[in-house]
Amino acid sequence: MSEFSIIKQYFDAITEPHKYTLYGIGDDCAVSRVPAGCELVSCVDTLVAGRHFVVDADPYAIGHKAVAVNLSDLAAMGATPYAILLGLSLPKSMANYAFLSRFASGLANICNRFGVELIGGDTTRSDVLTISITALGFVPQAEAITRKGAQVGDMVFVSGEIGSASLALLHQSLGQKSALQHALDLPNPQVALGQKLLGFASSMIDISDGLGQDLGHILTASGVGASIELNKIPCHEALSGLPDDARWQHLINGGDDYELCFTLNQDNLMSFTRKYPSTLIYPIGYIHQELGLNLLVDEMPIKLQVAGYQHF
Amino acid sequence: MSEFSIIKQYFDAITEPHKYTLYGIGDDCAVSRVPAGCELVSCVDTLVAGRHFVVDADPYAIGHKAVAVNLSDLAAMGATPYAILLGLSLPKSMANYAFLSRFASGLANICNRFGVELIGGDTTRSDVLTISITALGFVPQAEAITRKGAQVGDMVFVSGEIGSASLALLHQSLGQKSALQHALDLPNPQVALGQKLLGFASSMIDISDGLGQDLGHILTASGVGASIELNKIPCHEALSGLPDDARWQHLINGGDDYELCFTLNQDNLMSFTRKYPSTLIYPIGYIHQELGLNLLVDEMPIKLQVAGYQHF
Repeated sequence: MSEFSIIKQYFDAITEPHKYTLYGIGDDCAVSRVPAGCELVSCVDTLVAGRHFVVDADPYAIGHKAVAVNLSDLAAMGATPYAILLGLSLPKSMANYAFLSRFASGLANICNRFGVELIGGDTTRSDVLTISITALGFVPQAEAITRKGAQVGDMVFVSGEIGSASLALLHQSLGQKSALQHALDLPNPQVALGQKLLGFASSMIDISDGLGQDLGHILTASGVGASIELNKIPCHEALSGLPDDARWQHLINGGDDYELCFTLNQDNLMSFTRKYPSTLIYPIGYIHQELGLNLLVDEMPIKLQVAGYQHF
Repeated sequence: MSEFSIIKQYFDAITEPHKYTLYGIGDDCAVSRVPAGCELVSCVDTLVAGRHFVVDADPYAIGHKAVAVNLSDLAAMGATPYAILLGLSLPKSMANYAFLSRFASGLANICNRFGVELIGGDTTRSDVLTISITALGFVPQAEAITRKGAQVGDMVFVSGEIGSASLALLHQSLGQKSALQHALDLPNPQVALGQKLLGFASSMIDISDGLGQDLGHILTASGVGASIELNKIPCHEALSGLPDDARWQHLINGGDDYELCFTLNQDNLMSFTRKYPSTLIYPIGYIHQELGLNLLVDEMPIKLQVAGYQHF
């Protein structure tokens, strides 16, 4: 099967055409308009079989997750997703209908849910299934939310339950069925919340490598420190029942959550709550001048190594 | 070594900052301005060890080529390159200074030569070295040169010598030293020519999978046919000395050239030549209504299977 026929058969027109796309799949490059008054936001994330998902994972979930992790990065800037480009390296054993149709279906469904078009791709053969996706989005001029704006006195928030994917990964490694499997396989990027926080949040990041490490990136980039209350971090009831030490590990060092962590000052918190009264966000701590990340339980510091995911 | 430290140590600030970049490496996404009156051009190309280069290839050449093949796609639209995002999947044995510093050096040198900034990346571990690069560029509104504009009566051109990389690959597979190794290892994307052809060329493609197959894409997209004279295709003297059959195979079915193939009508050819009198382009044939690609030698048709590179 040629590269050309794979793209034609499985990936052409699986996503809805976007009004900003002038040329999508089928030429050397895609050509796109950029909306007036907007800046371009771009990121790349790669998933590798046996590292980011088990080798026999459902191809639908692989397609979903490869897109989701990128939309989560766009969300962390407050961007509106526009399109993706797909670099797919595929073992010969997967260059067939069974794999490709389900992979394409998972990819297309999440794209269409978020109004994202697949505008380009490259399919190559490899012994290791590797999916490298670049996501493009737009953000109103000068409004992108970065990691470096956290201010002393800001409160620290997360967008939802933390640690679920990490517990599911543990269950999976033990061969146990997990009620949290969906959190690991089909993460839901917080795109709408990211956009709502434009003009309100002073800094933001998505939680992919663990809350401790990712909040650490905000602190380093902003030149500040933070204290967070472990018992205020929202988590699924499957985590609530764990011994403290185990739960804290999942909350601080577990990866793959794809929730947002962000900071708001008091004024903006009030304005945000007035504008979006039904949007739940979860305060977990505050920013202070003293550098470093303090982990507290009922205001008492506890000792926990902040590791995060080590890729090498 | 963590992903974070690899990016910091080897890839941060290796390319010159571009005036359109507001945030580059170091946040969830890059944020960029798009020049007024321009459209965004984007593409992705992936290189896999053992497929697109030999496993023990010079990391400098791998870094160069991974960028070059993408700039060649931008060139084929007439775009001005702006930036790349790097998805790097790396065996543990290569997560070291020897590999990464030379790879980064090859990547940075070609980027800086073309004014391209590395604005984002993702480093993951894999058993197979895989480099997926997304390139971004800009083109004046409504001027992008696609594959579908070839008109009956247009002449067909190429930008330079064809078949060199294919012959070098043959030499390499036979364990022979090749005078053409640079064409295979360090291709030179035709970025300046692509931009000069804006407003002149009616269609364009870059030759990555073989002149026969790639010109075939123009013909299919444009709904026309072409006849080309094999003896008018420019080639290196190392090819001129080969038997006809062997030379024709390299010219028509050899891949990895990264030259441009494009069409011009007579009027635009004259205007182009007046505007760029010292820019050499090579006429190899013409477009006609009758579909298909005819390969001629001194106006006599010859039989040659047009294959191109099959990825699967």
